[in-house]
Amino acid sequence: MVHREPEIDAAQLLSDLDALARIGATPEGGVSRIAFSPADLEARRWVEEAMRVAGMAVRRDPAGNSIGTYPGREPGLAPIALGSHTDTVPNGGRYDGALGVLAALACVRALHAAGQRLRHPVEVINFVAEEATMGGGTFGSRAMAGLFDPAALDHEAVDGRPVAEHLRRAAIDTAQVRTAARPAGSLAAYVELHIEQGGVLASAGIVIGAVEGIVGIRRYAVTFHGEANHAGTTPMDDRSDALVMAAPFILAVREIAVAHGIVGTVGTLRVSPGASNVIPGRVELTAEIRGLDEATLDAAEAALRARAEAAGAAFARMSAKEPVRSDPLIVASVEQTCQQLGLSCRRMPSGAGHDAMCMAALTRQGMIFVPSQRGISHAPDEYTAPEDCVNGARVLLGTLLALDAALDSTGDG
Amino acid sequence: MVHREPEIDAAQLLSDLDALARIGATPEGGVSRIAFSPADLEARRWVEEAMRVAGMAVRRDPAGNSIGTYPGREPGLAPIALGSHTDTVPNGGRYDGALGVLAALACVRALHAAGQRLRHPVEVINFVAEEATMGGGTFGSRAMAGLFDPAALDHEAVDGRPVAEHLRRAAIDTAQVRTAARPAGSLAAYVELHIEQGGVLASAGIVIGAVEGIVGIRRYAVTFHGEANHAGTTPMDDRSDALVMAAPFILAVREIAVAHGIVGTVGTLRVSPGASNVIPGRVELTAEIRGLDEATLDAAEAALRARAEAAGAAFARMSAKEPVRSDPLIVASVEQTCQQLGLSCRRMPSGAGHDAMCMAALTRQGMIFVPSQRGISHAPDEYTAPEDCVNGARVLLGTLLALDAALDSTGDG
Repeated sequence: MVHREPEIDAAQLLSDLDALARIGATPEGGVSRIAFSPADLEARRWVEEAMRVAGMAVRRDPAGNSIGTYPGREPGLAPIALGSHTDTVPNGGRYDGALGVLAALACVRALHAAGQRLRHPVEVINFVAEEATMGGGTFGSRAMAGLFDPAALDHEAVDGRPVAEHLRRAAIDTAQVRTAARPAGSLAAYVELHIEQGGVLASAGIVIGAVEGIVGIRRYAVTFHGEANHAGTTPMDDRSDALVMAAPFILAVREIAVAHGIVGTVGTLRVSPGASNVIPGRVELTAEIRGLDEATLDAAEAALRARAEAAGAAFARMSAKEPVRSDPLIVASVEQTCQQLGLSCRRMPSGAGHDAMCMAALTRQGMIFVPSQRGISHAPDEYTAPEDCVNGARVLLGTLLALDAALDSTGDG
Repeated sequence: MVHREPEIDAAQLLSDLDALARIGATPEGGVSRIAFSPADLEARRWVEEAMRVAGMAVRRDPAGNSIGTYPGREPGLAPIALGSHTDTVPNGGRYDGALGVLAALACVRALHAAGQRLRHPVEVINFVAEEATMGGGTFGSRAMAGLFDPAALDHEAVDGRPVAEHLRRAAIDTAQVRTAARPAGSLAAYVELHIEQGGVLASAGIVIGAVEGIVGIRRYAVTFHGEANHAGTTPMDDRSDALVMAAPFILAVREIAVAHGIVGTVGTLRVSPGASNVIPGRVELTAEIRGLDEATLDAAEAALRARAEAAGAAFARMSAKEPVRSDPLIVASVEQTCQQLGLSCRRMPSGAGHDAMCMAALTRQGMIFVPSQRGISHAPDEYTAPEDCVNGARVLLGTLLALDAALDSTGDG
């Protein structure tokens, strides 16, 4: 083997991004590769073929995840995995997920072109069904990390059919999904490059985000009970208007989030009975808060509950995902790589969930963010500049090399 | 003919209310007689038969309105009309509309039983499609008053089909509806008894409302434009949340209504895209205000517009119905009758639209209200006590007699 410094082939990466974006392209300029759809399966095969060309052995696990393995040179070392997903939301963007998979591929291609093997094997993983089109999302990474819940098979997919039906059509044996779980120690690390899906990096003019962790998400159902009545015949003094009760709470969610340094949103609101000439008798809304610190989320939740209950509303926690901290070694490796490459870098939380969040149950994990123009994601005008995509791949490669040097054979660092 | 004082047959009126409530009765204890439905048509035939039994000649006009005529004794006098409607909203109550028709019938029955004819002929009118199940409602009274707009034929009925289709199935010739219009001077007056559909009389313990007029209704479409974005990745400072913009406006509608002594309501609100993890990009709501005085409505509208536009919202007037004042002679006749009968009476506006509002374009008109328990209407638990129903019919009869004495042959009073 000829030894030279591995380098990301920028032109090839950008060409791959274009090629993948053509699979499931929509008239609006977006991409629809809903998990297990023909476009999604075609993209998966496309990536698998590219893995083979880059010198990897490719397999699919029982959950449908594609795993490419590039061999290492030291026997007994667990692989370092890089990856993301190539499924999308309906009419989504071309970078969310795809960039992480193609950049991982570019890293291995760089090693392969340089005739170089690392101490550790390198895996490229294209996870299955990360988007919440199949129930709650992160289907493949959950399965790999041993977090698979069979109840997920019965969840409703985006088209109203059960998830199990989609799996069967994709020739995935639902009884075998749980066997995709990998044992502890089977991976040395997992690193994921992803677009930020927020506007922090873009508006600050920073190139790389070193993700400190993925925020915890708590979601609440809040119901305000008034009395539906005729909007013409009921004097203002005699009204019990559920929407008038809900309005201050909407503002309180924002105030409480700001006061606690987290984010908070009322994203859905339904008025019943919902006629212009009837006073709202009931308002149901969902509120969610996200933050990296459990104690802060507890405090914000208590404040929200107090405000809702003071207005006579029913306040119920629908779900709570715990925050997941990134591995400090990976965060430090990302920062160190940026310094070496002369790229600006900021530590930041991820406000969205990712496959890395699930992989934390299996191995040390971390993420690298690149800027999303205007913070737009899950839409056709999702955009990350070519130079940012390439810089992200370079930082991913640098981080891989740093981890390869730092981690020992047990995967304990 | 034997002359004795005409008197309402209370037992018969209450029995009629029971009998009519059985036509279209719902399991919830309400009534569904959606205009032109089999139950509605059956009720219409039932009333027509009762009109005949009470000595009236019955006809249907080209709009489908049933008109019963009880002859008068002075040639050349235009009829005094009493009436309301027997159609209901889906799963509505048993008093809204029905009471007015059956009380009108009870008045003629009282004359007939007493062997008495008035100076004027008396008409009992059962208007067709008063409820807003066929587009905007008051279909029959509009047609009779010459206010029919052919565009109404294309409006969407409550089941999503065009109004014209319902008319045709009820054997109404849509090309002839406009010929239901009656000429000026063809009626001497129109008086309608109706339940209040509000809680003012019930909570004040007053038996009769002498309706001063029907409020004007102005309805607005208000659209707040934010930017839909990820609820996790978008910092609070970078948000443009349409629901957070709309919340203060919801409160402003109430404040402005109270400040102007009118009523104001936000009855519908739609959040787009409407997912718990997406910041609302657009909120569309309807606001309406109602009041008896145009200048006050103008002032309130200006205040609403200013508040909406200050929040960057688009504010559009969807519709404006002018207030309709009752005829002073009718209001005075109602009050005078109450005094004679020893019944408490209060002047009040009607916050809801009624057939009488349309009939104002054709003749002098007025309304009599009786209490609605807890102000509930358009629901199965709509309730007016039997004694209140009977008192309402007595006041209707007294008002009829007073008008018969006061009005001259030209219908000009």
